Amino acid sequence: MWSRKPSLKIINYKNIKPEPEMHSAKGVSVRWLITKKMGAPNFAMRLFEVDQNGSSPNHEHPWEHEVFILDGEGEVENSEGKHAIKSGDVILISSNERHQIINTGCETLRFLCIIPHIDDQRMMKNN
Amino acid sequence: MWSRKPSLKIINYKNIKPEPEMHSAKGVSVRWLITKKMGAPNFAMRLFEVDQNGSSPNHEHPWEHEVFILDGEGEVENSEGKHAIKSGDVILISSNERHQIINTGCETLRFLCIIPHIDDQRMMKNN
Repeated sequence: MWSRKPSLKIINYKNIKPEPEMHSAKGVSVRWLITKKMGAPNFAMRLFEVDQNGSSPNHEHPWEHEVFILDGEGEVENSEGKHAIKSGDVILISSNERHQIINTGCETLRFLCIIPHIDDQRMMKNN
Repeated sequence: MWSRKPSLKIINYKNIKPEPEMHSAKGVSVRWLITKKMGAPNFAMRLFEVDQNGSSPNHEHPWEHEVFILDGEGEVENSEGKHAIKSGDVILISSNERHQIINTGCETLRFLCIIPHIDDQRMMKNN
């Protein structure tokens, strides 16, 4: 799937299959772009696509998110309310901060979300 | 600079000042989007812009890069040769892998590069 020798890996995100996100997510798919299994020692890169009117679950977990909005617009909701987000925005969601990402625009909301590796792969799949 | 309470931080990348990259880089600037100082516990997100005909230095270091190409096209050179890259490509450069990123296109080559926190901030500035 990846090209080049193990120490340099290149792939286009469109060649990584999107998986539907479960656990109360609506219209959300995720592509695991870089994972521990692929050889990344510290953190994983995922690309999420949220359909129009879709949203991630309102949830929290003991690891942080580093997010970059690639396309679209929406909102991040936390305990303080809803905060507008759009293409080019950078978001740091600290550990144990309850959050939800909602597509309020007319196109797919597409973003990268990087997380540290955690031991339980099932937990990783649910954030 | 960042909006919202400390546990949720949102900013547009264009509001973070680009800094010229030194150390043999040609026509490269970097915006430090998320850093340890801002509260990120594990890894830093940076956005690089490489001008037409510009390039990062040919260098290596003991930490990995996780890269996502936002715009433009270019090449990654390693010990095996040059490998084409374009918008939407995902690149994992392992630790101690010599590498150089070159803009071979007609527009700015723009990419995210995420690295683990390392102790010496000066070293972080030089990768």
